[in-house]
Amino acid sequence: STTIRIASIPGDGIGKDVMVEGIRVLDAAATKFGFRMDWKHFDWSCEYYARHGAMMPADGIDQLRDFDSVYLGAVGFPGVPDHISLWGLLIPIRREFDQYANIRPVYLMPGVKSPLAGREPGSINMMIVRENTEGEYGTQGRFENRGTEDERVIGEATFTRKGVDRILRYAFEQAMTRGRHVTSATKSNGLAITMPYWDERFALMARNYPEVRTDQFHIDILTAQFVRNPDWFDVVVGSNLFGDILSDLAPACAGTIAIAPSANLNPERIHPSMFEPVHGSAPDIAGKGIANPVGQIWAGSMMLDHLGQPEAAAAIMRAIETVLAEGPRTPDVGGKATTVEMGKAIASAL
Amino acid sequence: STTIRIASIPGDGIGKDVMVEGIRVLDAAATKFGFRMDWKHFDWSCEYYARHGAMMPADGIDQLRDFDSVYLGAVGFPGVPDHISLWGLLIPIRREFDQYANIRPVYLMPGVKSPLAGREPGSINMMIVRENTEGEYGTQGRFENRGTEDERVIGEATFTRKGVDRILRYAFEQAMTRGRHVTSATKSNGLAITMPYWDERFALMARNYPEVRTDQFHIDILTAQFVRNPDWFDVVVGSNLFGDILSDLAPACAGTIAIAPSANLNPERIHPSMFEPVHGSAPDIAGKGIANPVGQIWAGSMMLDHLGQPEAAAAIMRAIETVLAEGPRTPDVGGKATTVEMGKAIASAL
Ligand SMILES: CC(C)[C@H](C(=O)O)[C@@H](O)C(=O)O
Ligand SMILES: CC(C)[C@H](C(=O)O)[C@@H](O)C(=O)O
Repeated sequence: STTIRIASIPGDGIGKDVMVEGIRVLDAAATKFGFRMDWKHFDWSCEYYARHGAMMPADGIDQLRDFDSVYLGAVGFPGVPDHISLWGLLIPIRREFDQYANIRPVYLMPGVKSPLAGREPGSINMMIVRENTEGEYGTQGRFENRGTEDERVIGEATFTRKGVDRILRYAFEQAMTRGRHVTSATKSNGLAITMPYWDERFALMARNYPEVRTDQFHIDILTAQFVRNPDWFDVVVGSNLFGDILSDLAPACAGTIAIAPSANLNPERIHPSMFEPVHGSAPDIAGKGIANPVGQIWAGSMMLDHLGQPEAAAAIMRAIETVLAEGPRTPDVGGKATTVEMGKAIASAL
Repeated sequence: STTIRIASIPGDGIGKDVMVEGIRVLDAAATKFGFRMDWKHFDWSCEYYARHGAMMPADGIDQLRDFDSVYLGAVGFPGVPDHISLWGLLIPIRREFDQYANIRPVYLMPGVKSPLAGREPGSINMMIVRENTEGEYGTQGRFENRGTEDERVIGEATFTRKGVDRILRYAFEQAMTRGRHVTSATKSNGLAITMPYWDERFALMARNYPEVRTDQFHIDILTAQFVRNPDWFDVVVGSNLFGDILSDLAPACAGTIAIAPSANLNPERIHPSMFEPVHGSAPDIAGKGIANPVGQIWAGSMMLDHLGQPEAAAAIMRAIETVLAEGPRTPDVGGKATTVEMGKAIASAL
């Protein structure tokens, strides 16, 4: 039978709590659907950093290279600056493995209460497609007149034609399998060199997909529309920064970011892809056993789908929906269950 | 008696509709509180551009220089690209007059329905303080390998020590007059050169205000918190881009961006300040007489406050609250009134 080889990196904080449940549910799915999960666990994290002075070994990326996928919990802990924890682990994996398509589905689940008035389950159903390897992120730039009154820092955002086109194409391809509607997040009226370029490439790409309805909103009013009219959206494509913002805001509108998953895809499958929850390491509740495991488990479902196990992936989604609707649920979604209880319930609902 | 000399620029679309009501209410306030409004109207707009090939005359900025303030409607219309309409009128005024503090109060008014479940009038009450003259906005940058497969565009965001410090200071000073709480919008985990600098200056500035409670959120989770916990916030300070996003999102959470005002302040009063609604020119409803005039009128109240007429400013706010609660209201806030009817009602509620 098929064996799926996964590198799991629980990371920090609640990453360690929810990873256990993700593995539990994936193992249960494997048993049921007749394939084998072969896990190798990596303790790369802020604790690892404290011991070794780096978030992962120098050959860390190479150690991951031959796995089918990477399954990540969460990275970051107080005391270790972000430029070390994130730029030493999460972001190098995204970049070295050219995981340029960051896919974040958002769905208002039965049993989950939206903070928006009057929204029914299913009425929010969109997919954020985020560019994941270039754009606004990074350390490119320079200081001028450092240490003087006239000090200034200049940050550079890079948009390559290849980078922009491939994420736009990915968004249109996704839309063809969904509602055939792509919304582009822009800010060409303010960021008046990079975003007009983004708009231009979007208009060109749209010509290849005459069946797909398109529109675009400046990021400011787009965030307002997520709150006012979340049902307007199907696929929403954005740059690294705009996609990041929208993929926290949209799940919040759909109830909670605790259940939102994130697939960092290398669509050409030259390198492994990585699957993680959208939420972070949440140091304030780490180790308390109350973190919601659904984001991690949903990310696991996306991983199985990516690795050729669509039935198992769909079965996990049904199990998540059942348990969110009927309980047991963790406190953040109105229940009293622990992380483990909710994870076990999802595994047995399979 | 005091005379207040205002340059009014209705601009485009609904800017022309709501400006009439703004002037009506300010004139009524002047009569009641014993000062004189002296208006000079400028027809600078996309129509002006169609006739003259520029959004304003070459000496436009100089023509505005000696007014007490500029009162703006909205700028932009389909057919004229943003880099012409906005960068030819709105943004040069902000920059030439060094209106670095963009102040956008957000308040859930009686009579206005929040899209967020269970929020009562007054439960959202914050002030977005946005840097308005530098940061991510602009055309600085370069193209490389233009026209080839390896084409890339690199945009530059500039943060000067002076520019960052003065907006942070302004935010802390505002907080001292309000809830003594400042939240900084950052993204130092991703935009890893400019935003760590912003954080560093924020931490330094906070030392000067030991009475003020501070916190900071990355922009992604901050947008989620605006939806989940809008009552957490008092003064929120952000860069040009982050402030722009938050000041559309927050009013949407508080019901509608149609009522939100924006003060572009030159706090040192070396140059005139500018007051405008947050909403744009809304070409789809322009000329239909249904635009909500409250954003324009509230901006007028901020202008009077800035120009030494705090009682008149406060009276306008009370009149706005009365009419929003009791009607007549425009359709966007659940009524059937026209722009003119609502404007007249606010003027007579004075
Ligand atoms: C029209 C646009 C350039 C402007 C901005 O981004 O500053 C607007 O969104 C605003 O908030 O005043
Ligand atoms: C932790 C941070 C660097 C990361 C990002 O901004 O990409 C996170 O917010 C995410 O969305 O995955």
